[in-house]
Amino acid sequence: MLSSAVSSSLLILHKPLARVIRFPIPKLPLSPNPRPLSSLSPAASALTPNAVGAGGRAGALSPAPITEDLQKIDVNPPKGTRDFPPEDMRLRNWLFYHFREVSRLFGFEEVDFPVLESEALYIRKAGEEIRDQLYCFEDRGNRRVALRPELTPSLARLVIQKGKSLSLPVKWFAVGQCWRYERMTRGRRREHYQWNMDIIGVPEVTAEAELISSIVTFFKRLGITTSDVGFKVSSRKVLQEVLRHYSIPEALFGKVCIIIDKIEKIPVDDIKNELKSAGVSEEAIEQLLQVLSIKSLTKLEEILGDAGEAVADLKQLFSLAEKFGYSEWIQFDASIVRGLAYYTGIVFEGFDRGGKLRAICGGGRYDHLLSTFGGDDIPACGFGFGDAVIVELLKEKGLLPELSLQVENIVCALDPGLQGAAATVATILRGKGQSVDLVLENKPLKWVFKRAARINANRLILVGDSEWQRGMVGVKILSSGEQHEIKLDELE
Amino acid sequence: MLSSAVSSSLLILHKPLARVIRFPIPKLPLSPNPRPLSSLSPAASALTPNAVGAGGRAGALSPAPITEDLQKIDVNPPKGTRDFPPEDMRLRNWLFYHFREVSRLFGFEEVDFPVLESEALYIRKAGEEIRDQLYCFEDRGNRRVALRPELTPSLARLVIQKGKSLSLPVKWFAVGQCWRYERMTRGRRREHYQWNMDIIGVPEVTAEAELISSIVTFFKRLGITTSDVGFKVSSRKVLQEVLRHYSIPEALFGKVCIIIDKIEKIPVDDIKNELKSAGVSEEAIEQLLQVLSIKSLTKLEEILGDAGEAVADLKQLFSLAEKFGYSEWIQFDASIVRGLAYYTGIVFEGFDRGGKLRAICGGGRYDHLLSTFGGDDIPACGFGFGDAVIVELLKEKGLLPELSLQVENIVCALDPGLQGAAATVATILRGKGQSVDLVLENKPLKWVFKRAARINANRLILVGDSEWQRGMVGVKILSSGEQHEIKLDELE
Repeated sequence: MLSSAVSSSLLILHKPLARVIRFPIPKLPLSPNPRPLSSLSPAASALTPNAVGAGGRAGALSPAPITEDLQKIDVNPPKGTRDFPPEDMRLRNWLFYHFREVSRLFGFEEVDFPVLESEALYIRKAGEEIRDQLYCFEDRGNRRVALRPELTPSLARLVIQKGKSLSLPVKWFAVGQCWRYERMTRGRRREHYQWNMDIIGVPEVTAEAELISSIVTFFKRLGITTSDVGFKVSSRKVLQEVLRHYSIPEALFGKVCIIIDKIEKIPVDDIKNELKSAGVSEEAIEQLLQVLSIKSLTKLEEILGDAGEAVADLKQLFSLAEKFGYSEWIQFDASIVRGLAYYTGIVFEGFDRGGKLRAICGGGRYDHLLSTFGGDDIPACGFGFGDAVIVELLKEKGLLPELSLQVENIVCALDPGLQGAAATVATILRGKGQSVDLVLENKPLKWVFKRAARINANRLILVGDSEWQRGMVGVKILSSGEQHEIKLDELE
Repeated sequence: MLSSAVSSSLLILHKPLARVIRFPIPKLPLSPNPRPLSSLSPAASALTPNAVGAGGRAGALSPAPITEDLQKIDVNPPKGTRDFPPEDMRLRNWLFYHFREVSRLFGFEEVDFPVLESEALYIRKAGEEIRDQLYCFEDRGNRRVALRPELTPSLARLVIQKGKSLSLPVKWFAVGQCWRYERMTRGRRREHYQWNMDIIGVPEVTAEAELISSIVTFFKRLGITTSDVGFKVSSRKVLQEVLRHYSIPEALFGKVCIIIDKIEKIPVDDIKNELKSAGVSEEAIEQLLQVLSIKSLTKLEEILGDAGEAVADLKQLFSLAEKFGYSEWIQFDASIVRGLAYYTGIVFEGFDRGGKLRAICGGGRYDHLLSTFGGDDIPACGFGFGDAVIVELLKEKGLLPELSLQVENIVCALDPGLQGAAATVATILRGKGQSVDLVLENKPLKWVFKRAARINANRLILVGDSEWQRGMVGVKILSSGEQHEIKLDELE
């Protein structure tokens, strides 16, 4: 590099080179500007009046701004998105830790997918809310892309891609950020993180039972009880059996489910009109709406008979719930259909018994999603569990943990000349697995104690001249005030 | 809900209701279609020829596809992006674990920012590669947004936003996905994850020394030695002192740095032309290029004199490196300037001594970034460490770990009627912190052993009828083949 330039002249300003070794430096040219390079023009230093640096050199002698475009930027994250400063990040990590721990207990493997996916993955014609809220763009290569609104389509895509190389059943979980572009009413954000667990390759209701068990396990770990939350469970097959009875085309099924899912948000007459426009007869509409009001499995069986899958699946699920030990957490509610077009069987959602919050989580069986992408169908079910409503619930129940920064040691040099010695001490402790906040500037002891308190340090290690010369450091246990000298090589 | 519909008729198909309790169900209307709801039309079942479900009911009696739009989707993730199937996710988690552990040892707090930021955050006029490769869009609200190409501008934004509420120095780290839209040559991807550590509020070189120490700690944990990698270190102040000597306007500094950073990628004559167009005199260009070829701090001092900050900073850094114990990892190299416009002082990059790979990581001091966003400047430095080159390096050195799925137990019912019992056993074990892969279908034992091997289970728990009736389960230690019966309440 630079070989073409090496043979020309080098400007030396302070002192001429006495010896030149393996580096050809000819005579000095006359400098066009006799100032030494290291001098600073007053104009340049005046450019940085705001430099914070009272404790150091840089405050006194500071380089100029490096870009010409001074502009005031918006210091807030884009509308509907969040920063995670340390206190929020601790909460997020705590929540994700429990997502991951529960998934591990259930033998699930973690996966992830791109946050930016092809828009085609989400274009379903059932009129879902999720499609209307797609955060989509055209990229610089004119491709239609979208920030993923959910994780399941990506999972389905990966399952098809992996094909026969997968050993079924696949049990996968993911914790990923999802996006939706909606009007910013109701205080909802445009992004949230979602924990997903999915079982691919199990046609039996044992799979759904296992998924609900994992969510119950999660709730219990956080201190949430069955008096705080519950699960409403139904099956899309209930609707399907009614539709089939009225000879309503199977292709309409997803659409009908999406319309019915809006039942708590819009007037029932609008629901009826939408169903009518979709091609459902008035009689079938009445029947659908009536079936949806059923809250007892016995009643459902009386209506649908006991030969159908809807009732059989639900009975099996409730029987398994008993064996898993979460009977008191679940209840049948025919009005649960969920807002995604691809569900085909059992559907469930976690709800706040206080009735104040939106659904905490939701899921179900989606045995035919893969074929809508051109793959071979594999029976599958899964759930999504967002990071928003659960935090509201925990807050309300007083179950949010106190999470504070905790650094085991704070190491401080007692004079500027010992900064390197303090670095040595920090390195020794870190090598032994101890976390260390190394004080990087010369600060008064009062400041150091304040910092030690802020980071909840256990020990303050002081590096002073006379101790250092004897190979010792001062160690103060901050909880007790106990103080002693320890040999550097005995520091644990 | 549904109250308006409740009083009308409910269709009951199989048997009339004998008793109606608290639920008004009048007489049955004549059904327009006498088929029971649970029967399945042959046409519907023919729609799902691919259903996998040999072992279960759903294969025999399966609902129809729920969406009308069958389309073949591309099963690959969008160009330049990655899926993370379990094996790749394990590697990513392993790498991130070490990022986080090192950050913890150094007392840093984790933060994060939105992956989608306002484009304005990245519009700097210095001609950086990173700006040309901005993954930017117009959103549905006509806002210019970009997938973040780096984390530092978001961090600066958050620091300004938090203002006086922050206790300086701030020591933050983040592990986040970054995006760049570039032509897909050289096998580079459009997204990568980046580990960042930043120190805000320390003007002294101790901060840079601490950052390099953390990266060295990271390398050592992974088994990487100083014969594999090293750090090239310089200071932007070297260039600055030369430019100042030639009275080149301070505002040109960022631009000059960006041009010079391309020195290994484009011919030196093109560099010279670009510098000339930027307004740098030929004499200054020659001088710049010569200074850049210096690889010894002694030589630099001979050229620049000993009064300037460049030499003083670098000398202090090398002295601290000795105290931190990583002298043999770093070397002075004036050609290092880094490709981001905002660096102002020490800059460094980690490089592969084999010379095959791109920079492994890079960072430096950026004391004036905050004022370019309209905030008050605070001295700051940091680094970015990507997840791509390090994995190539580990692969090449044979240092990639063997990471396999490990589930402690596999629990299996020996007959269909014991599926619930197996669920009970799984719940007990999970309650004791043991991970369990519960076999959710009836499978031959041969299949179960194969699965146990695939998930590296320690124990196989068999739930058989005669043992279960005695409150026992069969436990097989898979490594030894040892087998015994254990009482359910003694299972650990």
